[in-house]
Amino acid sequence: MHNFIFHNPTKIIFGRGTVPAIGTETAAFGSRALLVYGQNSIKKNGIHNQVTTALTEAGVSIVEHGGVCSNPLLSHVRAGIAKVREHELQVIVAVGGGSVIDTAKAIAAGSPAACDVWDFFIGKSAIKAALPVTTVLTLAAAGSEMNGGMVITNDVTKEKFAASGPLLYPKASVLAPELTFTVPPTYTAYGAADAIAHVLEFYMTTEDDDVPVQMEFMEGLIRNAMQSCERCLADPCDYGGRAALMWTATLALNGLTGAGLGRTSFPMHMIEHSLSALYNVPHGAGLAAVVPAWLRWRLPQAAVRIAGLGQRVFGLAEPQAEETVQRLRNWLSNVGCPVTLAELNIPEADIPRIAANALNLARIWRLDSYSQADIEAVLSFCR
Amino acid sequence: MHNFIFHNPTKIIFGRGTVPAIGTETAAFGSRALLVYGQNSIKKNGIHNQVTTALTEAGVSIVEHGGVCSNPLLSHVRAGIAKVREHELQVIVAVGGGSVIDTAKAIAAGSPAACDVWDFFIGKSAIKAALPVTTVLTLAAAGSEMNGGMVITNDVTKEKFAASGPLLYPKASVLAPELTFTVPPTYTAYGAADAIAHVLEFYMTTEDDDVPVQMEFMEGLIRNAMQSCERCLADPCDYGGRAALMWTATLALNGLTGAGLGRTSFPMHMIEHSLSALYNVPHGAGLAAVVPAWLRWRLPQAAVRIAGLGQRVFGLAEPQAEETVQRLRNWLSNVGCPVTLAELNIPEADIPRIAANALNLARIWRLDSYSQADIEAVLSFCR
Repeated sequence: MHNFIFHNPTKIIFGRGTVPAIGTETAAFGSRALLVYGQNSIKKNGIHNQVTTALTEAGVSIVEHGGVCSNPLLSHVRAGIAKVREHELQVIVAVGGGSVIDTAKAIAAGSPAACDVWDFFIGKSAIKAALPVTTVLTLAAAGSEMNGGMVITNDVTKEKFAASGPLLYPKASVLAPELTFTVPPTYTAYGAADAIAHVLEFYMTTEDDDVPVQMEFMEGLIRNAMQSCERCLADPCDYGGRAALMWTATLALNGLTGAGLGRTSFPMHMIEHSLSALYNVPHGAGLAAVVPAWLRWRLPQAAVRIAGLGQRVFGLAEPQAEETVQRLRNWLSNVGCPVTLAELNIPEADIPRIAANALNLARIWRLDSYSQADIEAVLSFCR
Repeated sequence: MHNFIFHNPTKIIFGRGTVPAIGTETAAFGSRALLVYGQNSIKKNGIHNQVTTALTEAGVSIVEHGGVCSNPLLSHVRAGIAKVREHELQVIVAVGGGSVIDTAKAIAAGSPAACDVWDFFIGKSAIKAALPVTTVLTLAAAGSEMNGGMVITNDVTKEKFAASGPLLYPKASVLAPELTFTVPPTYTAYGAADAIAHVLEFYMTTEDDDVPVQMEFMEGLIRNAMQSCERCLADPCDYGGRAALMWTATLALNGLTGAGLGRTSFPMHMIEHSLSALYNVPHGAGLAAVVPAWLRWRLPQAAVRIAGLGQRVFGLAEPQAEETVQRLRNWLSNVGCPVTLAELNIPEADIPRIAANALNLARIWRLDSYSQADIEAVLSFCR
């Protein structure tokens, strides 16, 4: 096991009927809040009303900042920062999935900063201060509700970049699984694919082979992501299934999966970020296509690890690496995820362009070993 | 899954050579520390010197409070509180295993209190303030390094009682697995038994059957406790084995195992506390005897759950509850743990006395369903 520091101070309030807790949890950090959310779904399903009522009852006044889209945009972050400064807001409340929470974090970090917020994403500046963030989660997928990371897309340069820091951990996150009863089947599956991808990035890129506690934990999370996704697809209002998927997705990226693995990297995300930045495909959908492709490309170097995954997650009696990749790809396809570029409506002729865009991120994410040809080779398996 | 709140703010610094970090981690909370430790082993093996050097270099002055024994005593806690008050100390540094850390927590809670510290253990007062605690762990077992619990024995009344609270989470804990290279085989096994017992209390007493994420996590921890214990016994200086056992024991009782299970209870600990309070047996040794006995006593009501454990932890092909209990008992015995009262040098004629003592704790721990006869029946299986 490699040395590590684990320090996750986010308070999780998990369970049925917990949305009103956002009031007092937020009031502990300020009385003037920016309320960040996505499109109008939270107004239709009543969550917006629940949240604003709870905030108001706790004495928190609200400035609204809706309109976050998937693959959230830098321009929208900057607009939020302007509101925070104009109204001297003290705390950011995110109501939504990873895109909304990441936008809230970027606003939280950008508001008190002297530099432009994009400087944090290109490594030009470090995050030295951030407003407190609280969240109400409405999608089991990204894990942003319990970590210090964020991903934002620069609308001008078409770069989808990440940044992180200890100041970005939400102070409190409300996880009420029933809020996800209305998530459509496709997005439920994309969320599971996202959680599985997060675990597999660590599982496949660990530089330490002697991490049995973490390997067991990760394999259990992948099994749970698959089983709970199937339950949610069979019955969208299966509370236990929604709860298991939500908690699995949170644990997949809250620091425990990677603790002790040494240097890990996110090569599948590196390639997917290029897909969603260029074509605006949903992140989980892009990952569903990239993950099996990357595993197949990686087979020659990682057959033993992949075969072990097959035995312990897919129940294969014998070590069969290629069969394992096929099983994962089939599972993703069966639950409704795209596994080819064609299913994502991306022309194969664009592969060089996608790879060139991904290479920018490869440099920033210390994935320098990846060449244009490597990334093209991975993408060529997305067919 | 039941509703839960998970909030564990302890910072873990894990790995080889991390002891010096205790200096800056402690200095962040004060410049005058009480240094709590056990017998003289940390002076012989150099850990005491490493810690005091790190604290001194970070500008922290020290008042010593060594002499913590296993099943730590209230009188020694009170002596520590007196030192804190006399020297106006600001932070408590624990260097040791669970007994030392629990003593440090009790001193931290008792020092600023107007009431007597024992009032926290008998439910007479709530912990409203506590000095910050930092720790250097020297034994993989109790999990106290990353939770808000503590167990202290009242030397006069012979009661071994627990208390807990959010203020008791250590601010930072240094987990350097190489510090446990010199832990003797018996205590290594007792530590594994302690971790397994912690997991099994949750696993067996959950009131929620639909907690698949947690069940997978717990089964993985039990497998890891067993495998890593065997590695440590085969080679006491196997760093990977020591690291896996240490991280397993920490995760076994840091809140994750119980999150979402609803109301859980600690009946095996309830009985063991009576054994160690009356006979001063090591806590892990007492648990090794009580756990299989309690499982056997519980068999009629819990055959399905125990049989599942047997299949997923002991690799049994068929559901066999009784065989599962036997396997666990055999494993504990094989690694050097006592599994009978006789091996603990406790006469069977004392069973009524032990049960009567345990009943006191049963009332405080909301285990009112346990009668004297129930506890005697469990203990009768310790043969």
